[in-house]
Amino acid sequence: MKMRATVAYNGSGFHGFAINNDVRTVAGDLEAALAKVVRSPITITCAGRTDKGVHGRGQVISFDVPDDVDIDPVRLERSLNGLCGPSIVVRDVQVATDDFDARFSAQWRRYRYQVMTGKHPDPLRIESAWHVWQPLELDAMNQAAAHLVGEHDFSSFCKRVKVPEGEPEKSMTRRVLEAGWREGDDDIVEFWVQATAFCHQMVRSFVGTLVDVGMGKFDPDAIPEILAAQNRTAAGQVAPPHGLTFWEVRY
Amino acid sequence: MKMRATVAYNGSGFHGFAINNDVRTVAGDLEAALAKVVRSPITITCAGRTDKGVHGRGQVISFDVPDDVDIDPVRLERSLNGLCGPSIVVRDVQVATDDFDARFSAQWRRYRYQVMTGKHPDPLRIESAWHVWQPLELDAMNQAAAHLVGEHDFSSFCKRVKVPEGEPEKSMTRRVLEAGWREGDDDIVEFWVQATAFCHQMVRSFVGTLVDVGMGKFDPDAIPEILAAQNRTAAGQVAPPHGLTFWEVRY
Repeated sequence: MKMRATVAYNGSGFHGFAINNDVRTVAGDLEAALAKVVRSPITITCAGRTDKGVHGRGQVISFDVPDDVDIDPVRLERSLNGLCGPSIVVRDVQVATDDFDARFSAQWRRYRYQVMTGKHPDPLRIESAWHVWQPLELDAMNQAAAHLVGEHDFSSFCKRVKVPEGEPEKSMTRRVLEAGWREGDDDIVEFWVQATAFCHQMVRSFVGTLVDVGMGKFDPDAIPEILAAQNRTAAGQVAPPHGLTFWEVRY
Repeated sequence: MKMRATVAYNGSGFHGFAINNDVRTVAGDLEAALAKVVRSPITITCAGRTDKGVHGRGQVISFDVPDDVDIDPVRLERSLNGLCGPSIVVRDVQVATDDFDARFSAQWRRYRYQVMTGKHPDPLRIESAWHVWQPLELDAMNQAAAHLVGEHDFSSFCKRVKVPEGEPEKSMTRRVLEAGWREGDDDIVEFWVQATAFCHQMVRSFVGTLVDVGMGKFDPDAIPEILAAQNRTAAGQVAPPHGLTFWEVRY
């Protein structure tokens, strides 16, 4: 039986989402809890792997449960929360169609990045927002962000994934549906970005470069040239992971 | 020389504000840092002592620095942040007038309390918001809150402080200038309350009782009777400390 679940997590205590046997990961905790409840080893697939320190709000996972196991989604949700909380919260468990795959069935993903402005950081948000004390020009950052929307080769904003020798390089072409900044509560500015899919470190590289624009280091209209360079050294800094939250996935 | 500073802190790692030699406190960390920088023992006074787990955003402290010590406020701020951060952030250090006292010079204080609604908690806010999964009637809660405004004896909403034998009981009469709920970002509802001064656990007792009103356990118009009872058992539950932030003080 195929199942899916929506998962939120505070990434601070985890070495990222993906399984890594040496360290604590979100998938590691979830698979261990699932194995305990289902009494059978379970492998999960996720909509998007998040890096160490990145948070989740609407991460989606899918997994197969052996047919001979009798599973009630409501009780499974409760058991998983008992085992994984409070750093991981399973918000919803459902039976899915057999062809559902958290990764390949996704139509688009949305991320949020929080920047905390002002001279001093807010000690209540040091785990969830990047503190930038320099004044930021939000209009310029939005003008720059608009250049990212559309289908582009994002090589300048992505960390290239190593492929085994002989295999072709992975394409860095993605379609960004929406990208923009808005003012949040109390000295917070938020970057919201939606795309069919993201490459590795793409959002953090967008944010770092757009913050550089906001400080006046780049002109907003330099973005097309940076994209055209297809080279990471053309872009700005990479924002730290803790400001980033994987917000939602649409299927 | 009299000095004042504005201090923010994440209360999660502290056993409250006030000095307690056995455990880590905000005042303990600040006094230790001040003693190190000024090279002389320093005692601080604060605008409002906060309980274990309660956060600060605009707590104000005052302290005396010996006249033979040469202090530059900007450098002192930087040194204190180096020693106390990131859980404590010193937002501002100034020279004050000789008669300034962080506690007795205050005209009013304002607190914020965050409640996180919805079926599941947000793992990014478990340290700064109280999760209440039951549906809450915000209109009823605001109607109830309006009864708290004005000068009242708040014995029903306060933890009585033990006084030494023979001394008179402390008055629980305070003047509340403003009290109300508003919807915040993303499943958060916030209670904002401003008063000339607060007694012990007053805000948490307001919030617990108003949340009880929001769940239908009390009628909004039961508040005048609860006040008149002058007895803690008449009020509702006491909300947990971690949703509370001491927001600002006006002098």
